[in-house]
Amino acid sequence: MALIVKKFGGSSVANAERVNNVANIITDEYRKGNDVIVVVSAQGDTTDELIEKANEINPNGVSKREMDVLLTAGEQISIALLAMAVEKLGFPVISLLGWQAGFETDANHTVARIKKINTERLKAELAKKNIIIVAGFQGINKYDDITTLGRGGSDTSAVAIAAAMNADRCQIYTDVDGVYSADPRKVTSAVKMDEITYDEMLELATLGAQVLNNRSVEMAKKYNVELEVLSSLEKKKGTIVKEKVKMEKTLIRGVAKDENVSCISIIGLKDAPGVAFKIFNILAQKKVNIDMILQSVGRDGTKDISFTVSFSQSPDAVRALDGLKDRFEVKAISVNDETAKVSIVGAGMQSHPGIASKMFEALYDANVNIQMIATSEIKLSVLIEQKSADKAVQAIHDAFIN
Amino acid sequence: MALIVKKFGGSSVANAERVNNVANIITDEYRKGNDVIVVVSAQGDTTDELIEKANEINPNGVSKREMDVLLTAGEQISIALLAMAVEKLGFPVISLLGWQAGFETDANHTVARIKKINTERLKAELAKKNIIIVAGFQGINKYDDITTLGRGGSDTSAVAIAAAMNADRCQIYTDVDGVYSADPRKVTSAVKMDEITYDEMLELATLGAQVLNNRSVEMAKKYNVELEVLSSLEKKKGTIVKEKVKMEKTLIRGVAKDENVSCISIIGLKDAPGVAFKIFNILAQKKVNIDMILQSVGRDGTKDISFTVSFSQSPDAVRALDGLKDRFEVKAISVNDETAKVSIVGAGMQSHPGIASKMFEALYDANVNIQMIATSEIKLSVLIEQKSADKAVQAIHDAFIN
Repeated sequence: MALIVKKFGGSSVANAERVNNVANIITDEYRKGNDVIVVVSAQGDTTDELIEKANEINPNGVSKREMDVLLTAGEQISIALLAMAVEKLGFPVISLLGWQAGFETDANHTVARIKKINTERLKAELAKKNIIIVAGFQGINKYDDITTLGRGGSDTSAVAIAAAMNADRCQIYTDVDGVYSADPRKVTSAVKMDEITYDEMLELATLGAQVLNNRSVEMAKKYNVELEVLSSLEKKKGTIVKEKVKMEKTLIRGVAKDENVSCISIIGLKDAPGVAFKIFNILAQKKVNIDMILQSVGRDGTKDISFTVSFSQSPDAVRALDGLKDRFEVKAISVNDETAKVSIVGAGMQSHPGIASKMFEALYDANVNIQMIATSEIKLSVLIEQKSADKAVQAIHDAFIN
Repeated sequence: MALIVKKFGGSSVANAERVNNVANIITDEYRKGNDVIVVVSAQGDTTDELIEKANEINPNGVSKREMDVLLTAGEQISIALLAMAVEKLGFPVISLLGWQAGFETDANHTVARIKKINTERLKAELAKKNIIIVAGFQGINKYDDITTLGRGGSDTSAVAIAAAMNADRCQIYTDVDGVYSADPRKVTSAVKMDEITYDEMLELATLGAQVLNNRSVEMAKKYNVELEVLSSLEKKKGTIVKEKVKMEKTLIRGVAKDENVSCISIIGLKDAPGVAFKIFNILAQKKVNIDMILQSVGRDGTKDISFTVSFSQSPDAVRALDGLKDRFEVKAISVNDETAKVSIVGAGMQSHPGIASKMFEALYDANVNIQMIATSEIKLSVLIEQKSADKAVQAIHDAFIN
């Protein structure tokens, strides 16, 4: 007998038919004699609809505490409906809200971090042979207030339960059937991977592959929870995410594209010691996350600094920099939202020379201009113009995979 | 400085505009220097929409525990939105779910009774000068499971808070501006009452006036909480509900109609001692509430027993009676759903003869046939055919009031 944690996203429970489908998957597992804990997100577009309701009341931004009260109603609805569907099939089942399932978080509303899971109730319900349906994305802080883990938080909820309960496997059901070497909707030759390492998956998640939430992969790595990404609509094996995988002939595991990127350039900055440090320090104080950085020599002893941030943080970054203009004699600050980051990821690439030149050659052949380059041990990213992104992914994928 | 409890129903918070309107009412009260606790229902048709979702999953009736999890999401949404609207006006505010507000109930899901209110958090938030928005209709049982108080339970939540916190007044806002002598949408000459006793209000609530939930009036009577029924859309005085009211010239306070009535007849029952007792005992075991009863002599030494139940309990009653046919030699069991109960209510009527004959005369003049009659100290009800109900209410109202 094993303990299996299964997580289903919003599209997997979007309507009654889908809910019934998920109930079948769950009860098939239970029928094998396994204990089953299920984590669910809000149905389909519920979260967006609730956000819209809040915007109607106050378009200028509402209290984060109340936003958490509002949004967690979404998962509350889906756990009840899924429990009803399981019950209809004749199985013992109970739904639990985040706080009932023991999720204790810090007090950072809308982006709370799990502090611990009090597993008492989960264990008691498993002892009663109940299938447990847990509301993902939500917890409670020490003031007894409802918190949420941020978008994609249901993945994190599932991994946290798997870690706390020492589950045998954590299965993340989604609308794709695994992790591909590129977005299969865009690159027809993309291949599904049987296995991928946590680190590779982390890079791919960060890079916009959008299969798994990043924090959930970090947590899985930290607690060594084996993940499986698979489809809720098709019965087939997915992709296993774990610490070490079998060596395969392809060094490059995937090609990812991220269009949620703004490139900000500070032009004609007077060259003095510590200027770059001061600029990035101000951005850090404003909690702006910098990704790629390019520094180049400008005219007349000045220099230019360009860096990328996520599209949503771009206004914050520009506001923070505006105050700098006088302090540092800056000629201009420009923002380019029409950019995309394309990356290749592979755990073995560090020890293989020639990967970079092969990537750049593929881009050159496809007539794509490279604006910035960034590297890490297991990835290589380039910033290019957004409209060439799909073409670039296809060209790189053709060069490395197949 | 006073403590005012205000309750707003689903139609009062149906959309963003209405929510903002309620926020204005609340903050006007707070600006006077009063402490304000607000109880809200789910927005507009939310509860019905959620019930529809449950029916889609399992039309054959779902777990009551899960139904409570599902439905309480409705109030969760409305408290968050109302708190956001109050916050936008610049006032300190916090929303609390039933369990956060301290509502401890028994374990009877969907029809739970409040056992106590743990007022600790309510008092702490008032001490911080917060306006408190509480989710009506919901609580928590000793197993830490979410419960609901049944339809109209938000009225009960408000009265319970007013009682537990020793509030100075409990105001129930609705879409009518008070309690009328008859349904003002049907009877144009209906008059609004300034005051009404708990007992009169109880009879009117039971009789389908639908202004206040019955249990809330019982609780207000028990703890002597002064209620005011008033409109959320118009700024004017409503109707006060309390123990004793000034004597007025009209003995009859209101005329009410209830179309949610089924009349069940057991025809040709062999007359033997204890038969009636046994029949009603079986119905009691099935938790069927009997309202009016008529026993009459039939042919050949048999008798007929007719009684009324609420429309929703009619199938349960018939099922319970089916088993009787053999046991008691019954000729037939018939059900008539096309009936209505029309009643007059007035605390002084008991000591005034001639009320009944005046009512029957009004019905006779209006050509309405009386099928059953029931009386209590402060009311007189008749069962008539449903299609004549509005005509009957108008005729009785004309005879007694104006």
